[in-house]
Amino acid sequence: MSTQPVLIAGQWRAAKASGTFHAENPATGEKLPDEFSISTWADCDAALATAAEAAIILRTTSPEQIAKFLTRFAERIEARKSELVEIAHAETGLPKSPRLAEVELPRTTGQLRQAAAAIEGSWAMPTIDTKLNIRSMLAPLGPVWVFGPNNFPFAFNSVAGGDFAAAIAAGNPIIAKANTSHPGTSRLLAEEAFAAVTEVGLPPATVQLIYRTSHADGERLAADPRTGALAYTGSRSAGLKLKAAADKAGRPIYLELSSVNPVLILPGALAERGTKMAEEFTGSCLMGTGQFCTSPSLIVLFAGEATEQFIAAAKQKLEATPTMPLLSSGVLRSLDESVKTLRAAGAELVCGGSPQPAPGYRFANTLLRVSGEKFLAAPEKLQTEAFGNASLIVVVRDAAQAEEVFNHLEGNLTGCVYSDTRGSDDALYDRLAPLLRSRVGRLLNDKMPTGVAVSPAMNHGGPFPATGHPGFTAVGIPASLRRFAALHCYDNVRAARLPAALQNKNPNGKMWRLIDGRWSQAGIAG
Amino acid sequence: MSTQPVLIAGQWRAAKASGTFHAENPATGEKLPDEFSISTWADCDAALATAAEAAIILRTTSPEQIAKFLTRFAERIEARKSELVEIAHAETGLPKSPRLAEVELPRTTGQLRQAAAAIEGSWAMPTIDTKLNIRSMLAPLGPVWVFGPNNFPFAFNSVAGGDFAAAIAAGNPIIAKANTSHPGTSRLLAEEAFAAVTEVGLPPATVQLIYRTSHADGERLAADPRTGALAYTGSRSAGLKLKAAADKAGRPIYLELSSVNPVLILPGALAERGTKMAEEFTGSCLMGTGQFCTSPSLIVLFAGEATEQFIAAAKQKLEATPTMPLLSSGVLRSLDESVKTLRAAGAELVCGGSPQPAPGYRFANTLLRVSGEKFLAAPEKLQTEAFGNASLIVVVRDAAQAEEVFNHLEGNLTGCVYSDTRGSDDALYDRLAPLLRSRVGRLLNDKMPTGVAVSPAMNHGGPFPATGHPGFTAVGIPASLRRFAALHCYDNVRAARLPAALQNKNPNGKMWRLIDGRWSQAGIAG
Repeated sequence: MSTQPVLIAGQWRAAKASGTFHAENPATGEKLPDEFSISTWADCDAALATAAEAAIILRTTSPEQIAKFLTRFAERIEARKSELVEIAHAETGLPKSPRLAEVELPRTTGQLRQAAAAIEGSWAMPTIDTKLNIRSMLAPLGPVWVFGPNNFPFAFNSVAGGDFAAAIAAGNPIIAKANTSHPGTSRLLAEEAFAAVTEVGLPPATVQLIYRTSHADGERLAADPRTGALAYTGSRSAGLKLKAAADKAGRPIYLELSSVNPVLILPGALAERGTKMAEEFTGSCLMGTGQFCTSPSLIVLFAGEATEQFIAAAKQKLEATPTMPLLSSGVLRSLDESVKTLRAAGAELVCGGSPQPAPGYRFANTLLRVSGEKFLAAPEKLQTEAFGNASLIVVVRDAAQAEEVFNHLEGNLTGCVYSDTRGSDDALYDRLAPLLRSRVGRLLNDKMPTGVAVSPAMNHGGPFPATGHPGFTAVGIPASLRRFAALHCYDNVRAARLPAALQNKNPNGKMWRLIDGRWSQAGIAG
Repeated sequence: MSTQPVLIAGQWRAAKASGTFHAENPATGEKLPDEFSISTWADCDAALATAAEAAIILRTTSPEQIAKFLTRFAERIEARKSELVEIAHAETGLPKSPRLAEVELPRTTGQLRQAAAAIEGSWAMPTIDTKLNIRSMLAPLGPVWVFGPNNFPFAFNSVAGGDFAAAIAAGNPIIAKANTSHPGTSRLLAEEAFAAVTEVGLPPATVQLIYRTSHADGERLAADPRTGALAYTGSRSAGLKLKAAADKAGRPIYLELSSVNPVLILPGALAERGTKMAEEFTGSCLMGTGQFCTSPSLIVLFAGEATEQFIAAAKQKLEATPTMPLLSSGVLRSLDESVKTLRAAGAELVCGGSPQPAPGYRFANTLLRVSGEKFLAAPEKLQTEAFGNASLIVVVRDAAQAEEVFNHLEGNLTGCVYSDTRGSDDALYDRLAPLLRSRVGRLLNDKMPTGVAVSPAMNHGGPFPATGHPGFTAVGIPASLRRFAALHCYDNVRAARLPAALQNKNPNGKMWRLIDGRWSQAGIAG
């Protein structure tokens, strides 16, 4: 058993390491055989140096070539599907079917193909003022670090997921830092990515991979002047440290940190379809064992008999559903701590509440409840993200108290409102939905938040601390590409020196450009 | 002589002050009669509280009403033109004509009218996925603080300038902090803004004005949870402190900090039209006494006889042009210090270099020079922004040294390249322009950077430390509006509950929306 190599400067080679680690199978708690390195700054520095060179070459690489890379990479992932599903299953405990094989892997290759299609160029919003001969567009930033999360080993993987696809489609080389809970999956994906890079003839350092760094080196690379941007999805505490380092150096950083995804169920809806909603809610709660960024973790209900019935139904359903393994021992530990924090702040257990016996890392499906009054006494603590299969129901006395609860909500990715179909909830909706609206990125009606469609209209983002900036989305093409770009203006620049997207001729007849205030796919006469 | 009131919560009232200050006439050095207050946190807090309430009302205010406000405000500024020009002249020393009356004031009202026109809504990029019924658009952030700069008392004024127009057109209430060198101009503008607010029936706290705060309160308001965003244009040191406070709290902040605006003049261009370029250069240098954000302060030339002639011609022109007053004693002090820093780092004086005798705050028109070698020995110090009428010429030995110089450049707003018309500079252009391109927001050919057209294609922005994020522009509508917005997604939200811009019907037939991947002004059938 040897240590797995890192991919730096087009070479699979031994890391300059300060130590090693193993992934675990969270379903069994067993250490997996492969050993991976913790890279020192020497690896980060080498990756940055070659990525900076690759960035220069990529600036003059044809968009079609980058699109071709993304397509070939998607095809290669599909060709290696069974091996990928196998290793991702071993490293994450997520079910092979349908989750990994039929849902997440196709989503991942679909994203790569959407990103390839976006390379026609409309994403860059080419803007032309013909009268003044001023022209501008979004252009690549330079090397992008991607730190992917633990919960989607394919779709948000540092080497294949949404941030990867967006950053590379925008023309940037990628330095992936694998999530340490699935380094083997990341290695396999990087093998296919690098093979596609080679096949298509992109600069070898277009895709690089390391597995882990020290926290200090993480902060250093986020601030390095060669870094174009960093995209991080993960825990709030680690993310905020990277943010502080990047902010200080003025390097763009995009974060997806934490979210309790409030759901408001109004009394009319509860009367109309309480049982159905209890099923929807528990189904959504347990998706991926509650380890979705958009898991509904804070439910607001109005006090009364119907709410007690809803809670009883949810409890029954949660208790009847077998617990699935969590992603890692770390997730289990943190979930256990979060539930303790919620209880210490006044939440009462409805069901679950403790780790399950070995093998593997499991936590009983958990539901907690708290009154609106108690919530308002400790609103910060009671918004602790319990990442995993635990949710908190806040039972409010009346609309005024619901208002107060909403006014204490932090920024979140999503917010949902269920209301009845006959209009009896409309006045409450009008009063409460605007409060939720301003605190979330995506507002839903009559639908749980766990589905995050890869749609141009999606917003997988939201106000701090859900993310670092409320104007950007991590999912949805073309908008997600625009995070990894700088605005480049050309003022009186001679025609032949302009990028193709800004010349009079529309380079492919498909690109939408804002010409003298009108969006158009046409060329400019003259 | 009484202290001028602040405008808070729709009342012109005495500030809760910690002290007072006067503006000065920089042409004479005399204290101006009006006294202004330094507000304490109590004023900031009151402004934030009422702005937060106004923000809620503005969310449901018709776009037409906000547009009407901007138009009426522009008309009112025009009606009070002579008084505004008079006071701005007294506070800044800038010429009444043409600068203030014929150039800057019309630019300002033009911006307000462009912002009014933008309220048709395309700026918000409404995006609709009809198949999945997911819809998104940009929406207001909440109260926006505007901290305007000293150098454009109208066009970048906290109460009338580009940031003001953009933030309010995006639907946000404004809290203006006047630039302390022209509080009287700001007060007059706020009077007209508030009169227009009242006339049109917007919430009274849509526009508020204070004159000055302590640094600590500045940092506190940047981080306050009620703050939607802060727009700051000014010195790097003060801006970075605000940025640190805002970043830590996760509040959006937009900065325009400093820029030396490198200009590269290639040998062929010098041979072809050296004399003309020396005139262009000195004219651009002295615009507003060099106090433009885009003043050409770092010129790169290739060593040789033609360069010596260029320098001699520029020297002659600078010495022959009367010095004009700087904006304040502070600008004079800082310019003097910056020139000393440049000299200490190895730059030699070509002409000027010291303050002029009273009356008023004047500095001799200044040109410095340094070799490429010396520049590379102290690249940071030699990029010190000398805000005012001073520029530094870097004389490089050859293209390789020019490359090295460019590789040491910080982020800038602009970069210019002059090349000849016969093609002899083309190889050098191809080698050097890309290095400049990646370090500036706007690249120009054969044109000085001081003109900043209010065009949709403009980028008045650039990489850190010129600004805080390379993807945004402070000038140019509609792009500048998008800084002051959050992305709001609606997933399965019932039709009647959607904002007008996201309903099937195009609300005004003019708004461009991205519907199923195509930009369109049409409605959606069904």
